[in-house]
Amino acid sequence: MEQVTTTRIRYADTDQMGYVHHAKYLEYFEIGRTEYMRARGHSYARFEESGLYLVLTEAHAAYRRPARYDMEVTIRTRLREVSHVQVTFDYTVENGREILCEGWTKLACTDRDGKLRRIPESLGKALEGVK
Amino acid sequence: MEQVTTTRIRYADTDQMGYVHHAKYLEYFEIGRTEYMRARGHSYARFEESGLYLVLTEAHAAYRRPARYDMEVTIRTRLREVSHVQVTFDYTVENGREILCEGWTKLACTDRDGKLRRIPESLGKALEGVK
Amino acid sequence: MEQVTTTRIRYADTDQMGYVHHAKYLEYFEIGRTEYMRARGHSYARFEESGLYLVLTEAHAAYRRPARYDMEVTIRTRLREVSHVQVTFDYTVENGREILCEGWTKLACTDRDGKLRRIPESLGKALEGVK
Amino acid sequence: MEQVTTTRIRYADTDQMGYVHHAKYLEYFEIGRTEYMRARGHSYARFEESGLYLVLTEAHAAYRRPARYDMEVTIRTRLREVSHVQVTFDYTVENGREILCEGWTKLACTDRDGKLRRIPESLGKALEGVK
Repeated sequence: MEQVTTTRIRYADTDQMGYVHHAKYLEYFEIGRTEYMRARGHSYARFEESGLYLVLTEAHAAYRRPARYDMEVTIRTRLREVSHVQVTFDYTVENGREILCEGWTKLACTDRDGKLRRIPESLGKALEGVK
Repeated sequence: MEQVTTTRIRYADTDQMGYVHHAKYLEYFEIGRTEYMRARGHSYARFEESGLYLVLTEAHAAYRRPARYDMEVTIRTRLREVSHVQVTFDYTVENGREILCEGWTKLACTDRDGKLRRIPESLGKALEGVK
Repeated sequence: MEQVTTTRIRYADTDQMGYVHHAKYLEYFEIGRTEYMRARGHSYARFEESGLYLVLTEAHAAYRRPARYDMEVTIRTRLREVSHVQVTFDYTVENGREILCEGWTKLACTDRDGKLRRIPESLGKALEGVK
Repeated sequence: MEQVTTTRIRYADTDQMGYVHHAKYLEYFEIGRTEYMRARGHSYARFEESGLYLVLTEAHAAYRRPARYDMEVTIRTRLREVSHVQVTFDYTVENGREILCEGWTKLACTDRDGKLRRIPESLGKALEGVK
């Protein structure tokens, strides 16, 4: 199930080309998965407080059209796959009906010291929308 | 008259101290004045399209308490003064009733080439809340 | 031919995990290709002044180990392929002999209005190391 | 005694005005004081590892001229004052002989929990250049 979030482009997110700098989309993806988790009852902030982390291991982005300052863009976040230790999300960033950027990120569950840890079962189920 | 805006702290806004990096507050101030102007009928995005710019000439921030990832902070923006070519805004960033940061920025009106220009009368009046 | 550049990690590049935020690597890749071009006689700053742009169309990063504040990392940039309108670079970011991150970016040549344009022959040859 | 550091402006540091975004100067100031400390035998990275922090309490910047992508700017850092718990640095960011930005930051010494702590005597003396 898709999570839909909106965010407004900050001036500081643009670069001298006049559009959003490409690295900023990874921040939009991050906003998307924060809200995906929150909507399923798992605040990522509290997850870290419990001593677990979701660490990025891979990221991909394909840029379709430029985004501009002050646009209120829509971030769509979908779960692609969750395994024992890893989770993959797909994202699209849109302006109205236009796709601006598509991408995905793979994250591994670790503890404070960076050791791989099992994704807690309750989180895994929540991400999958299983009740 | 005060403009009240909220924004949620992005993960990317934090640093290794575990709080929001101090430079990010200048971005929050920027969000505040974008919304201050929009609420008074003057989109800053459209202002730039007309060939005019509000360029920062001075900024000040006093940090009271740390902000954290995922907080939904309130940005309060007030006009301190508008002259023929310059405008000064005051800001506070708050978490509930706690002040996190206070500051101000001075901006000069310029054209594309950086030459000082008069602030359009309609904008000056709108900023002051004069009808 | 590989271009080797070093850069020191800024405090502001870290996040609350205590490491460099993953989006920053796209900025390091950007530093790498700026220096790749400069070393081959083509300043990207001057390229833009001539009215042409290299616009990111795709980016990929795989994160191997975390980078920390104050590390002086090595960015290795290699040309993978240059066509009439597109160029692909490969990057690794390293700390001593450890690979921290590997990635690639695909860029398209456009004019100011975002229309695809041929990569100038002199640039294409310089990127390939042809004299 | 002044510390002189150079850094090259990243593309990602610019905004759609075509110049460096004003918030980035706080990052340049940070680079400046990192190098000021290192040159006096006190790595700030190691300082944090020892459990102490220098936390920003106040920042000020006055913008004189715009900085551009790819400029190699000079950051000059000077100690203004160091007390038992607080230290103030002055900065100028320059391009050749032109001053781009002047500013200062005040920092307080705290422990991991944000409690004020005395600045270690060896650090205080080193900052002042006392042997």
